[in-house]
Amino acid sequence: MGSPTAATSGRSSPSANHYDIVIVGAGPVGLMLSTLLARWGYKIKHIDNRAEPTPRGRADGIQPRSLDLLQNMGLKAPIMANNPAKVFEVAFWEPSPDGGDGIVKTGSWPSCPPFLEARYPFTTLLHQGLIERVFIDDLAKHGVEIQRPWTITDFKTSNKHPDYPVEVDLDRDDGLFQQKLYAKYLFSGEGARSNIRQALGIQVTYKDPISYVWAVMDGVVQTDFPSIKMKCTIHSKHGSIMVIPRENSMVRLYIRIASSSDPDFNPRKTATEEEVQATAKKILSPYKITWENVDWFSIYPIGQGIATNYTLDQRVFLGGDACHTHSPKAGQGMNTAFLDAQNLAWKIHAVESGFASREILKTYETERKAVAEELLAFDNKYAQLFSQQAPPKSAQEHDTSTIHVNEFVDTFKKACAFTSGYGVKYGPSDICWSVAHNAQSNLICPEDVKVTPGRLMVTADVTRVADANVVALEQEVPENGAFRLYIFAGTPSQSKLAALRDFAKYSSTSGSYLGAYARPDADGEVSYHETHNPHSHHFTLSTIFAAKHEELDMTTLTLPPLLTRYRDHIYADDVTDRRLSQGVAAAHSKVGVNLDQGLVLVVRPDGYIGISVLLVEGTGTVEALNKYFNSFCTKTLSLATSE
Amino acid sequence: MGSPTAATSGRSSPSANHYDIVIVGAGPVGLMLSTLLARWGYKIKHIDNRAEPTPRGRADGIQPRSLDLLQNMGLKAPIMANNPAKVFEVAFWEPSPDGGDGIVKTGSWPSCPPFLEARYPFTTLLHQGLIERVFIDDLAKHGVEIQRPWTITDFKTSNKHPDYPVEVDLDRDDGLFQQKLYAKYLFSGEGARSNIRQALGIQVTYKDPISYVWAVMDGVVQTDFPSIKMKCTIHSKHGSIMVIPRENSMVRLYIRIASSSDPDFNPRKTATEEEVQATAKKILSPYKITWENVDWFSIYPIGQGIATNYTLDQRVFLGGDACHTHSPKAGQGMNTAFLDAQNLAWKIHAVESGFASREILKTYETERKAVAEELLAFDNKYAQLFSQQAPPKSAQEHDTSTIHVNEFVDTFKKACAFTSGYGVKYGPSDICWSVAHNAQSNLICPEDVKVTPGRLMVTADVTRVADANVVALEQEVPENGAFRLYIFAGTPSQSKLAALRDFAKYSSTSGSYLGAYARPDADGEVSYHETHNPHSHHFTLSTIFAAKHEELDMTTLTLPPLLTRYRDHIYADDVTDRRLSQGVAAAHSKVGVNLDQGLVLVVRPDGYIGISVLLVEGTGTVEALNKYFNSFCTKTLSLATSE
Repeated sequence: MGSPTAATSGRSSPSANHYDIVIVGAGPVGLMLSTLLARWGYKIKHIDNRAEPTPRGRADGIQPRSLDLLQNMGLKAPIMANNPAKVFEVAFWEPSPDGGDGIVKTGSWPSCPPFLEARYPFTTLLHQGLIERVFIDDLAKHGVEIQRPWTITDFKTSNKHPDYPVEVDLDRDDGLFQQKLYAKYLFSGEGARSNIRQALGIQVTYKDPISYVWAVMDGVVQTDFPSIKMKCTIHSKHGSIMVIPRENSMVRLYIRIASSSDPDFNPRKTATEEEVQATAKKILSPYKITWENVDWFSIYPIGQGIATNYTLDQRVFLGGDACHTHSPKAGQGMNTAFLDAQNLAWKIHAVESGFASREILKTYETERKAVAEELLAFDNKYAQLFSQQAPPKSAQEHDTSTIHVNEFVDTFKKACAFTSGYGVKYGPSDICWSVAHNAQSNLICPEDVKVTPGRLMVTADVTRVADANVVALEQEVPENGAFRLYIFAGTPSQSKLAALRDFAKYSSTSGSYLGAYARPDADGEVSYHETHNPHSHHFTLSTIFAAKHEELDMTTLTLPPLLTRYRDHIYADDVTDRRLSQGVAAAHSKVGVNLDQGLVLVVRPDGYIGISVLLVEGTGTVEALNKYFNSFCTKTLSLATSE
Repeated sequence: MGSPTAATSGRSSPSANHYDIVIVGAGPVGLMLSTLLARWGYKIKHIDNRAEPTPRGRADGIQPRSLDLLQNMGLKAPIMANNPAKVFEVAFWEPSPDGGDGIVKTGSWPSCPPFLEARYPFTTLLHQGLIERVFIDDLAKHGVEIQRPWTITDFKTSNKHPDYPVEVDLDRDDGLFQQKLYAKYLFSGEGARSNIRQALGIQVTYKDPISYVWAVMDGVVQTDFPSIKMKCTIHSKHGSIMVIPRENSMVRLYIRIASSSDPDFNPRKTATEEEVQATAKKILSPYKITWENVDWFSIYPIGQGIATNYTLDQRVFLGGDACHTHSPKAGQGMNTAFLDAQNLAWKIHAVESGFASREILKTYETERKAVAEELLAFDNKYAQLFSQQAPPKSAQEHDTSTIHVNEFVDTFKKACAFTSGYGVKYGPSDICWSVAHNAQSNLICPEDVKVTPGRLMVTADVTRVADANVVALEQEVPENGAFRLYIFAGTPSQSKLAALRDFAKYSSTSGSYLGAYARPDADGEVSYHETHNPHSHHFTLSTIFAAKHEELDMTTLTLPPLLTRYRDHIYADDVTDRRLSQGVAAAHSKVGVNLDQGLVLVVRPDGYIGISVLLVEGTGTVEALNKYFNSFCTKTLSLATSE
């Protein structure tokens, strides 16, 4: 995997106080947005009102889907260098059935069961400050430094510089310095008490009428409680606790100390460290627990709120906690924030690099708000799940075939999908094909294809033909802001090679999705070592054959030069998947590709599927792709007008 | 995995110029030795006559077995952070059968086939300087800095300080500073032209009467040669080349430019960069190759030599290239050096920490010289293999069952075992049990056990019960200098628990291998967070059950406290291995443990098996272990004299 290449042409700002984007807040959502846009060459002003990164505590759970994203950005290794705890299972402890004071373990569940096919089926636990530092180090490599402690004092739409319509006033914390900037975009990653949201008059609605006060404590303990290194929920006569293991032998305890359903509810209720520890001791009894130290302790009220809008004008955007707040139990805050930022980043890039029309920016709110609403609606069900008794034995089996389909298990499966981050399905839009889409062709999304627009690309191991390395197909294109075309070519055959030649021929014309957005230097000036974007900054093409890699002899298989130019993106689907029978082409099978036919799978820059189109001889495949991209691209794509 | 714990008691040196060891040379062998001993708390003087680490080129291939070791030391991640190339396969190119000038690909082989069961079945390519830096950074964390450019000018045995019998004179390169030191040990990692070896009068014998002159060139190329990202051997009418991919889009070419079998052989034959490139162009024709830059270029004569001794007095030792030189083709230099150092390190530690008698230091030479001799004897066969035509199709299959047993394939299998580092089997000695060993009991090494003393511990995925993490069993104990006892407990049952209780009971007595070497602070003062060595610095105990981890409920399974004290070393053998049928206890099966019986596997600190003993009720198991350790330990172990 090389480093992503930016489409940097034409993005020089007219003067020093002009920025592509001003980002306010350097928590997870702001840092993810900043890190992605910095890699793609944008000019960023990033401020935070805290004098330094989070020193300890706060958010701590990186879900499997987020880890995929971090890996795709090359940031998983530095995260893992901190030796985080990994949670594979959730254990359940209930009051002792003998009616006594004690607790007993009643069961456990995988936190990310095999049916989700996660590449990393565990939650990674690390305090927010260590995670922030990984982003801050990466930003520094791309020349972006967080300016702190600074705050935003005002912003407005301005005509002074039409290309930079957002006027922003910033103030250093000590009041000694002010800056007035002009930006194309302004982003609030300020957290739940977003000033920008309030200035815009955007309301927050609370889905759950009940709000809670939580105590949370990170520390090093000594205990004989056997599940101390697992995530667990403990219910006892003395109250409830959630236990989450942490890096550096630490453990986090969440204790709910008040609920708006309590008769004497007080949202400002508080408790001391000692009180919380005393409660924890009672709940864990007969097991003993003592603290060697407490690293972080906090009490906070939290409601399940959601902003009515994520943007009003597609110039000023909100994301993360500024848009939605959750109970800490499902560990969704930071993860939802990461994916908010990723969703917005590529769309801003697609617009500002001249590829997509400004309209696609509206899908940020429709896509991400729907996810937040689903999550919040789900949170109640999830809460119920955790207060129930242990699941039936069958739910604990790792093999999907033995899971009985009953309501409980169904809720559990959905819960896992949500908490792992794999439950997201973006709804129909110009970028997520549906039967209502403008693009119509009998080649589009045929019935036997198993993958759906709006869902994530499948995970699959394949062999990279150039160097015979076994690689993760879904990770092979880095987070480079480009659409990913996976050409599943099935079994090699003469007719298939003819279809590939036609695909290459028509994709190379000036009226195609690819030709219309060719790099200005595509005619001979592109570096020999450019592996991801040799033809266009907006596309990376990968070709996958259902054949053994030894047999895919590149010297005799005469693929069209358009495809072979992607030297490191030609794969053999010949790695055994333990979930499928031996020898079958696992990636093709998961996608649902007819091996005699072939399929082009279009994956958005964020990894979600846009559309699939059958691979056929003639112009049909490229014409169908043109129709799809026509619905949101800036140019009119047509083979008829091609040179 | 926590950090290794040193048995640091009683190792304070009497004065500033007294050292546990003086290490000369900071190449792979010296750095590995230094890094291990530094972690275990030894006082080290480490010098090198080069002003700075290797800037480029030189050794570059980390074999699978070496990567296991680096992972066990926590150094794999920083190695991988350099984005090395990974070689999974070797491709073979031969002269075109049409008699023309060209070359054709005739086949490929996995470089580390599945039957070897390697955790990391590939070679990792990275220039020696980047590898050295990972060690140098780790040494700095433990307070050791390489002193350079310094040389050793003299050394002798001295009675002045009986505990520090080696007197060493060092000299700074500019002649302005001298140091006289007293050390327990002196180590030469000086390379092929070892001054220490010459001073000792140790001869080098050359196994192969033929010597060669090689040209080697690292650089960034542009080429249409399809196998440029694989390791390949190319034979053409114009000569032969070996191609090895590298980090940063580089490729290494090895070209043999002279052989002592040539009629006009000249060991000082040389060639320019341009001449070597011109030869490479001819050999690769009809494919084109041009160089963007050359990072490193060298010409060197090499013979296959081996030192007659690795030590004369078990005080001054040699290792790495000072003991053995190889042709570069098999990529063995650095890897053999690493394993030389690891072998010596734990033995020095065992002696100096008061655990083992000084006699075991003799096994450094017997074990490592035998490996070098086998490797060199093998090198000729290996060379023949590479000059042969492509292997029959059957040899290219990844499934062992389809590999026809013929001489060719047999040689190939052995080649892979050697080049991957898994071919090593240490011969019988006090530390590697055989039928001739002092320890005799019908419980020792029963026939159906599949693992052999002298061989590496098996690789196996298991579930760690404390946190339900799926882990690599063979990697769970860090490189901490302790013997590793794996108690394969089979299926849990009442009789098994009785055997475990007896094992724990007799292991806890003062006459047992464990009790006799108990930590002085073992009675209550050991930290709660000490996970690897709570009872003795010389042992880490792990218990593995053939059961599902959900069923191994730690609250009801009443294991003896001795075993449960190793909270993070209790495992469930319930992870499906793709090489075995579903559901079987894979780790037990690989070791060959009868699930109704149980087995204690003793693994040396370097990962090689010492002995195996059946787990039975009564004193038998511990008595057999006592007999084994009695053969090389400093104390007399006997249950009869136990308190």
